[in-house]
Amino acid sequence: MVNVGLPLFAETLDRLGVPVTHLDWRPPAGGDLRVVRLLARLEACRERIDRANAIAFDRLVNGEPILVDCVPAHEALGLGDRVVLHAGPPLEWDRACEPMRAAVLCAVRYEGWATQDTEAARLVDRGDVRLEPCHRAGAVGPMTGIVTRSMPVFVVENRRHGNRACTTINEGLGKVLRFGATDDTVVARLRWLATEAGPLLGAALRQTGGIDLRTLMAQAVRMGDEMHQRNVAASSLLARALMKPLAEVARDGAAHARLAAFVAGNDQFFLNIAMAAGKALADPATGVPGSTLVTVMARNGTDFGIRVAALGDRWFTAPVLTPVGLYFAGFGPDDANPDMGDSAIVETIGLGGGAMAASPAVARFVGAGGVEEARRVTVEISEITVGEHPHFRVPALDERGTPAGIDVRRVVETGITPLINTGIAGRIAGTGQIGAGVVRAPLACFTAALEQLVAEAG
Amino acid sequence: MVNVGLPLFAETLDRLGVPVTHLDWRPPAGGDLRVVRLLARLEACRERIDRANAIAFDRLVNGEPILVDCVPAHEALGLGDRVVLHAGPPLEWDRACEPMRAAVLCAVRYEGWATQDTEAARLVDRGDVRLEPCHRAGAVGPMTGIVTRSMPVFVVENRRHGNRACTTINEGLGKVLRFGATDDTVVARLRWLATEAGPLLGAALRQTGGIDLRTLMAQAVRMGDEMHQRNVAASSLLARALMKPLAEVARDGAAHARLAAFVAGNDQFFLNIAMAAGKALADPATGVPGSTLVTVMARNGTDFGIRVAALGDRWFTAPVLTPVGLYFAGFGPDDANPDMGDSAIVETIGLGGGAMAASPAVARFVGAGGVEEARRVTVEISEITVGEHPHFRVPALDERGTPAGIDVRRVVETGITPLINTGIAGRIAGTGQIGAGVVRAPLACFTAALEQLVAEAG
Repeated sequence: MVNVGLPLFAETLDRLGVPVTHLDWRPPAGGDLRVVRLLARLEACRERIDRANAIAFDRLVNGEPILVDCVPAHEALGLGDRVVLHAGPPLEWDRACEPMRAAVLCAVRYEGWATQDTEAARLVDRGDVRLEPCHRAGAVGPMTGIVTRSMPVFVVENRRHGNRACTTINEGLGKVLRFGATDDTVVARLRWLATEAGPLLGAALRQTGGIDLRTLMAQAVRMGDEMHQRNVAASSLLARALMKPLAEVARDGAAHARLAAFVAGNDQFFLNIAMAAGKALADPATGVPGSTLVTVMARNGTDFGIRVAALGDRWFTAPVLTPVGLYFAGFGPDDANPDMGDSAIVETIGLGGGAMAASPAVARFVGAGGVEEARRVTVEISEITVGEHPHFRVPALDERGTPAGIDVRRVVETGITPLINTGIAGRIAGTGQIGAGVVRAPLACFTAALEQLVAEAG
Repeated sequence: MVNVGLPLFAETLDRLGVPVTHLDWRPPAGGDLRVVRLLARLEACRERIDRANAIAFDRLVNGEPILVDCVPAHEALGLGDRVVLHAGPPLEWDRACEPMRAAVLCAVRYEGWATQDTEAARLVDRGDVRLEPCHRAGAVGPMTGIVTRSMPVFVVENRRHGNRACTTINEGLGKVLRFGATDDTVVARLRWLATEAGPLLGAALRQTGGIDLRTLMAQAVRMGDEMHQRNVAASSLLARALMKPLAEVARDGAAHARLAAFVAGNDQFFLNIAMAAGKALADPATGVPGSTLVTVMARNGTDFGIRVAALGDRWFTAPVLTPVGLYFAGFGPDDANPDMGDSAIVETIGLGGGAMAASPAVARFVGAGGVEEARRVTVEISEITVGEHPHFRVPALDERGTPAGIDVRRVVETGITPLINTGIAGRIAGTGQIGAGVVRAPLACFTAALEQLVAEAG
């Protein structure tokens, strides 16, 4: 007997002792005829799309991201006064979640544009402080993703395509702006980053002539980082690479030691840099005509947004879901803020959730079980991607590459949405991180993008 | 049909289409009746031995090795004038292999006891320079394992048992003393290590109050190090841990930068420290009455020697085998020196060859194939070990521990000898490293130890 579709029949036959082969078939697009027709329209120009995707895939995976500098955001991004960058797609202030609102107001205070949150809120309400997505400004930020002009940002240059992307310095754990904490210790750390850590990191990076991130990230994948939830290998490799140039440029031993303690004490130090590398890699794939590959996935705590290569910088959004995972003591699912951050750029380039097989320790941490479950996740994501990453290879998969290049068509057809490894922020402002887990990208973003792809395909 | 023993019959039956179950049984000790009788003698006191092994195993795996200092060998080991420590069991000068002889003579020149190799050779010939195994002096050294009084050594303290073990600073790749290279660059590096690198590392380590190596090594195992052939994770984690204290103690930016470049540039920097941790862990298991666990495996390029817990510091030796593996361009098996170095202490404590499943990248590198082959090696070694390491756990094995505690009885009974991951030295003096691979411990060491165990069991 061969059973197709629902496993129920196969299970019944199996119980009855009838030899049965089950074919795990599901109707495309969950049987939604309107969407099936859209897919059929694209099927008609499949060859052209596949060719376009091959170009976009090559750009996405074969770029050469180099970490070249760390300078204030106003220098790197031309970021002006009274602009606050945030994670995810564009966000109207009155739809912002609590941690996002708190972080924006804290940034306004940090920059000295207001002394109190109430005053800061008035400025934002009146439009005297403007909100803008990081991605629009050439940056990426984790969780709330706040960037303002005086904050130092790492600069990643894609030497193959000449583009650049920036990101803030990861603040470490505990009370941090990116998770919506806003007390005095948060602001004090931001000042230290701007006045001491950032300039020292910048000087060290300029001294190196640039650190090859593709090589470093490939090495870290071999060491069990999926580079979203786990960055201990990449962070250690980067720290090691910074030892010599820091020793060369540091004039003040105490300042050097403070920075060394900060860098060495944070296993997630590399996360932001992986994100900037991700944007530097993905941006050149933006605008490849006809390509259905996803070039951005990002969340602002309210909406999840994607961009697609053929559709340039347009956003396709849907309400974000809330991560599920493990919580710190005293917290639970009811305390979780909906999904947030530009960090899903890591999944966009073939790391994070889809690279779970490289990182069984993370699979366990985010509640997904052991080695087999980690492998299953990677196999599942390979159903919606167009290829294996030529550089990010996994020893546990006998050197096969991680699945890379998410194809909007495949997502809509299979109903398999990208799996994102993520931190979980408390939904009450000021709480900070309460756990870590996994979350799915909402299908509606991909369906909306598909419609537009069909419309433009004519 | 059930086939027991030789697979040949099963294969034949299988070809004939006869359903056959093959039981991979081999006679104990390869059917050697004399040895079978020895094993039977020990079987009679099995419970007592198992209890002793449980004590020795606990000491071997639950010690707390802390990296506390780096000081000259004369301070740490009381090493006197005109003594050269070498790897492996005791070695008569006229039986020493070429790279070992060259390295000893180079060390004599380095210490200023002679200016020429010929003069140095006369001193050794006459016994005016004395050779001694590292292990006897409280040290371990990779490959030739040379230690003399002015060389700086890392000091590892086992805080659970109060014992200490020392090791030289890993010299890096290329022309290095441990592989029998002896030119001026080798001596110049040794001088720099003694005058600049060692004192700086010592000051930094004293500043930390000690680095917990068990935690660091457990983390590195999770990152794909088996810690013999692959130490990139442990080396990076250690470099990161040294950043802050080095910044605090370094007075001279240029010296600091030279050391940082040296540490950051050597993926095997941690190997020697893993070895000292290994000796610090294994030494307290030495002398547990009745225990058949191996506490030392070491090679001097001529003999392979083991020590066994119940038999204290006596050596049981047999001629070393020659590693097989991958060779650098221009070299092949004919150029390989027989097996050499104290580094097999790593295998003695449950890492290296037996931990191959943690490090599929190494399995490939040493020619053992991919993930399945790496796992097979670890399963095989678990047949000769008494337990799983409680701290060195492998994500790819769903958090199971590496096989640890080699039991002489099991080795002799099964004929499975420990598998050692190793570097390969050129057999011509001055050549240096020519490749890396795997080698087996010779069975005869274990049989000899078994005889002594039986003799002492009465």
